[in-house]
Amino acid sequence: MKIAISTGGGDAPGLNAVIRAAVLSAIDRGWEVLGIKKGYAGLLGDDEVIPLGRDEVRGIGHLGGTILGASNRGNPFHYPVRQPDGSHIEIDRSDELVENARNLGIDAVISIGGDGSLAIAQRLAQKGMRTVSVPKTIDNDVSGTITTFGFDTAVNTAMEAIDKLHTTAESHDRVIVMEVMGRSAGFIALHSGVAGAAHVILIPEIPYDIQCVCEAVMLRDRRGRHFGIVVAAEGAFPRGGYESVMGASLPGQAKRVGGVAETLARQIHEGTGKECRSLVLGHLQRGGMPTGYDRLLATRFGGAAVKAVEDGKWGHMVALQSPDIVTIPIEQVLGKPKRVDLGHDLVLTARRLGISFGN
Amino acid sequence: MKIAISTGGGDAPGLNAVIRAAVLSAIDRGWEVLGIKKGYAGLLGDDEVIPLGRDEVRGIGHLGGTILGASNRGNPFHYPVRQPDGSHIEIDRSDELVENARNLGIDAVISIGGDGSLAIAQRLAQKGMRTVSVPKTIDNDVSGTITTFGFDTAVNTAMEAIDKLHTTAESHDRVIVMEVMGRSAGFIALHSGVAGAAHVILIPEIPYDIQCVCEAVMLRDRRGRHFGIVVAAEGAFPRGGYESVMGASLPGQAKRVGGVAETLARQIHEGTGKECRSLVLGHLQRGGMPTGYDRLLATRFGGAAVKAVEDGKWGHMVALQSPDIVTIPIEQVLGKPKRVDLGHDLVLTARRLGISFGN
Amino acid sequence: MKIAISTGGGDAPGLNAVIRAAVLSAIDRGWEVLGIKKGYAGLLGDDEVIPLGRDEVRGIGHLGGTILGASNRGNPFHYPVRQPDGSHIEIDRSDELVENARNLGIDAVISIGGDGSLAIAQRLAQKGMRTVSVPKTIDNDVSGTITTFGFDTAVNTAMEAIDKLHTTAESHDRVIVMEVMGRSAGFIALHSGVAGAAHVILIPEIPYDIQCVCEAVMLRDRRGRHFGIVVAAEGAFPRGGYESVMGASLPGQAKRVGGVAETLARQIHEGTGKECRSLVLGHLQRGGMPTGYDRLLATRFGGAAVKAVEDGKWGHMVALQSPDIVTIPIEQVLGKPKRVDLGHDLVLTARRLGISFGN
Amino acid sequence: MKIAISTGGGDAPGLNAVIRAAVLSAIDRGWEVLGIKKGYAGLLGDDEVIPLGRDEVRGIGHLGGTILGASNRGNPFHYPVRQPDGSHIEIDRSDELVENARNLGIDAVISIGGDGSLAIAQRLAQKGMRTVSVPKTIDNDVSGTITTFGFDTAVNTAMEAIDKLHTTAESHDRVIVMEVMGRSAGFIALHSGVAGAAHVILIPEIPYDIQCVCEAVMLRDRRGRHFGIVVAAEGAFPRGGYESVMGASLPGQAKRVGGVAETLARQIHEGTGKECRSLVLGHLQRGGMPTGYDRLLATRFGGAAVKAVEDGKWGHMVALQSPDIVTIPIEQVLGKPKRVDLGHDLVLTARRLGISFGN
Repeated sequence: MKIAISTGGGDAPGLNAVIRAAVLSAIDRGWEVLGIKKGYAGLLGDDEVIPLGRDEVRGIGHLGGTILGASNRGNPFHYPVRQPDGSHIEIDRSDELVENARNLGIDAVISIGGDGSLAIAQRLAQKGMRTVSVPKTIDNDVSGTITTFGFDTAVNTAMEAIDKLHTTAESHDRVIVMEVMGRSAGFIALHSGVAGAAHVILIPEIPYDIQCVCEAVMLRDRRGRHFGIVVAAEGAFPRGGYESVMGASLPGQAKRVGGVAETLARQIHEGTGKECRSLVLGHLQRGGMPTGYDRLLATRFGGAAVKAVEDGKWGHMVALQSPDIVTIPIEQVLGKPKRVDLGHDLVLTARRLGISFGN
Repeated sequence: MKIAISTGGGDAPGLNAVIRAAVLSAIDRGWEVLGIKKGYAGLLGDDEVIPLGRDEVRGIGHLGGTILGASNRGNPFHYPVRQPDGSHIEIDRSDELVENARNLGIDAVISIGGDGSLAIAQRLAQKGMRTVSVPKTIDNDVSGTITTFGFDTAVNTAMEAIDKLHTTAESHDRVIVMEVMGRSAGFIALHSGVAGAAHVILIPEIPYDIQCVCEAVMLRDRRGRHFGIVVAAEGAFPRGGYESVMGASLPGQAKRVGGVAETLARQIHEGTGKECRSLVLGHLQRGGMPTGYDRLLATRFGGAAVKAVEDGKWGHMVALQSPDIVTIPIEQVLGKPKRVDLGHDLVLTARRLGISFGN
Repeated sequence: MKIAISTGGGDAPGLNAVIRAAVLSAIDRGWEVLGIKKGYAGLLGDDEVIPLGRDEVRGIGHLGGTILGASNRGNPFHYPVRQPDGSHIEIDRSDELVENARNLGIDAVISIGGDGSLAIAQRLAQKGMRTVSVPKTIDNDVSGTITTFGFDTAVNTAMEAIDKLHTTAESHDRVIVMEVMGRSAGFIALHSGVAGAAHVILIPEIPYDIQCVCEAVMLRDRRGRHFGIVVAAEGAFPRGGYESVMGASLPGQAKRVGGVAETLARQIHEGTGKECRSLVLGHLQRGGMPTGYDRLLATRFGGAAVKAVEDGKWGHMVALQSPDIVTIPIEQVLGKPKRVDLGHDLVLTARRLGISFGN
Repeated sequence: MKIAISTGGGDAPGLNAVIRAAVLSAIDRGWEVLGIKKGYAGLLGDDEVIPLGRDEVRGIGHLGGTILGASNRGNPFHYPVRQPDGSHIEIDRSDELVENARNLGIDAVISIGGDGSLAIAQRLAQKGMRTVSVPKTIDNDVSGTITTFGFDTAVNTAMEAIDKLHTTAESHDRVIVMEVMGRSAGFIALHSGVAGAAHVILIPEIPYDIQCVCEAVMLRDRRGRHFGIVVAAEGAFPRGGYESVMGASLPGQAKRVGGVAETLARQIHEGTGKECRSLVLGHLQRGGMPTGYDRLLATRFGGAAVKAVEDGKWGHMVALQSPDIVTIPIEQVLGKPKRVDLGHDLVLTARRLGISFGN
């Protein structure tokens, strides 16, 4: 048996732990493992395919990043090709990919990636490539699995940042708005905000009313708590959409990293008169050593993916359904992104704690 | 409604987050909350009962320890009384406790504690005290709940220690044996060991054979890896029991903290000729700021406990059955401590990774 | 003897450790200690003056922030007064301050603050107030002392951020520009950049040439290192000044936090074609628990300040001249801000390591 | 020019940063660099001598341990040789070493090590080998330099452990004794103890009286502070020596790691009746990623060592005399180990804070 591993999309702490566990689990079965560099570029001649053995995965389980690299060439159906004039067009190189994999004697591919990668794996399967997927999203927005690796690390990174902001916000009677990742799901904001004792949490699932936000800040002020911490997902948006308050583009299209925190800080200052500061946590959330939780989940996913290959679970992804790792058909989760459930006990408890969601 | 909160037994990071969430959730319902200091001593005149309001729980969610204190006077059925000669006898003060609670107008008690506390809550319920429990065990050995708060923090503390030991063990070609908590369940050893890439993990659920341990060390040595990290739960014991190899007491009775690591280091040195060192992580595992996971779980437990009081779930404990917090009757979990399931995917994957369990 | 403590200006981790050490050292001498809240506002009736005893400083040594609070009312010579129309004017309330201090029986004031506070202390001394100063600047730009507390914590915070960015930058072949504090001195950028193995470090002391920066990135690229980490002090500016490249204001006037990183990322992208990202570390550098180095330095400063009061060293500030704490007349350091010495071995070694300073 | 680098003795975080800086600084001068594995074993045919280039030192600056390995074969004058019966004798292989170095074309050796390594470098110099030394001691007990790398990391590791113990000690009204490194110098205990707000600090420089220790614990108890943290250097010993209180061996000979904390915990329990626990921090202090301070100091040492070779400073070691790195003749520091200066302001301030040194 010869398998190949590919990683696609943005970084998530734990990627290397998945790779390590998959490689060692395969070697333990007597299999051979290849690593496809840079998404699928390694299989399309634009980068390498490397053998992965004990030496290659030694001591990488606790490292951030991925030894396979990542790229914007992760989609063989829309593969970017540089034109002589410097511009890019996209072409379909999926048939070439499948054939190259066959020529290399690859029996199955373990594809580690997010929603996009899951869809690609699905389509490659239709062309005859045998794939098993490992879900990867730092935002925790893939359904079918309780959590994904990288999420716990991101939550702790954001929470530790909030811990740091607390003391300085309190000393200076300031409101600090911190923007975290989460374009369409507010899990990082919700989890880090509750864990870090933020006072306002704004998530894409609950359009906010800036007046409610300001009232929450002033309610604290009247109680003698003159500072405030606001955590906002990058996808948080005002009721009515951005264009209603700013004459700007639609929320879903708003890709301006940093805009959310800065805008909120300005609006809260205008609405309350309080000194406000903003901060965008950005790529710090994708970097660094994974937490214990993420190393374990990633390791289990890696081991389970090889088991799924052994069991011929083509077109399936591994998933955490505590306390077990299971496999589920990708088609069950595709197009059904996970969102914060507003009736979940964490949201209800957060409200009881006095946290405002800006509504 | 007037409720009281008591904490019993050893420390677990997250205790204060439970207290804070319970207090704020109760206040939000218009209830009054009392805190019983030092287990149940506060209700027996040996310590205080204090009102818990917003001010008392402000800014404590990220702190280790418990603002209510802990003590060896947590069991009113076996309450220690100091005799004139300095010795202690134990008496049953449970009736007094129930009456004092009634006199203070306490409608219900939220009891945060381990297996022992759950049993006590059960017996107090039989005497007419209305209780809801929150499970607390750093060892993660209470059944009915996926995890308990404090466990994730302990795992990360142990894992970070293993990370530190790796570099120094490797530079010096040493075997380092680290002992972690877990008298009868090996969860901390298993989780921190896999996350930290230990080479041998010894847990109470798998009696070890010292020869297997030595062989695992020498197998690595022959592969050119001249160092090793062994993680041992304090309750790990050799096949046949301690007396068979050391002429010592039975494993279950062995309470000598530190003995396990030191003994193992000596035996591995004797069996392999390699330089060995030992380390007992001890109370470092119980201290410090809780991780994001534990702060969230503790906060949810606190909020859910108040909800359970509201719903009159007397004799129940809150529990994590991902993704939800549920309540289950204490009698369902009493006397059924959770142990590492040897068929669990984490154990199987660990073996695939080449980790030896000493058998 | 009755002394008062005031803190002025921005946060620096270690402030509470100074306060704690000063209070305990004074109590140990049988003195009384008052804390002036919010800069000098507490002495001008706009806030409180509180007694500081053992209980007030218990367990605060490891906390960020300051229990005395900070404010924009730290300068009694230019004290902001809100006008009926909401605007502010500044008036001189220094005489009132000196008299109020006298009426409270304050024999001496320990003033903890930066360059501005040192100047104020100097002027108050001329009005008869006996002061001893403790230098405070996270930027490490006060001369006469090897370092100031808070600086080491900020360097470690920035370095850990760089550590996190390394893995994600490398996986994605990106250039990440991180902006750190340092308006006129580049110590944080230099120290965190070298410690974190950044590839380009831009500081106010060395005006950069964007072409040199791009060349440094491309030199790495040609060596097969396709990513890069650029650390820029907020006060870094291009040779010729900002207006020369952007038609913008003079560098010294540029207070646009975040502008530096974003501008650099755009320019490096344009100059190299590489994918670039920017990040502003901001207030994370001022928050959080102080490192061991800062707790010790702050503690020593606090103890030394009380000793200086005992010795009547009016108009002096405490300073680290390793291995000793000394006192030096404030007038010796006023108006002589410390800058990175371009001939210092750290700069020379950084160049040997291949780090570019953009020139 | 061809230089070689050797590392000797126990681990200290920062070793790899020294190696990296030395290698890159030498390459920048057009020199060639060799790395001697396992102390001097690499030069005596018992291990390797490897070329060190950019690739070998890439990304190692933040890693603990040493890529050159360490061993008990660091002293060529007393080189261990295994006899057929398994025992070891020591022989002088220094002439062979010098000749092998010459045959490899090595012009100079940069020797990174502690007191022992400095003495060896001195003797090798007398045999014609040109050496420059970099002092390495986690205990900070080499004179002539303000600090050595690794010390700051060890202090922070110990301080963070004390932080963790505080909350659990306080909740449970316990006294916890933590043993840290420092056989003959108490710097780690003193610095971590003051930074971590320990209540009793025991160091080799101040023989303790167990009654004073118990009194310090009870004084706190009477003030309502029922817990205590005692930090003891492994070399701390009772006034009169161990034999006087335990009938044991002389303190200087006592190599029983862990004995100090355990003994103290038992004695304090006997003397105060309080519940006591002990903890030995052990090798955790030598492992892990170096702090910013240590990475910078190590980097500067590495760069300065190469500069010293360039300047022909044979027989010198590099040293920190803030703010500069200087070189000093080894003979000036040999046999003059640094000890805690009992008149230093840190000790005096610690006493003012109420910390007991057990005397």
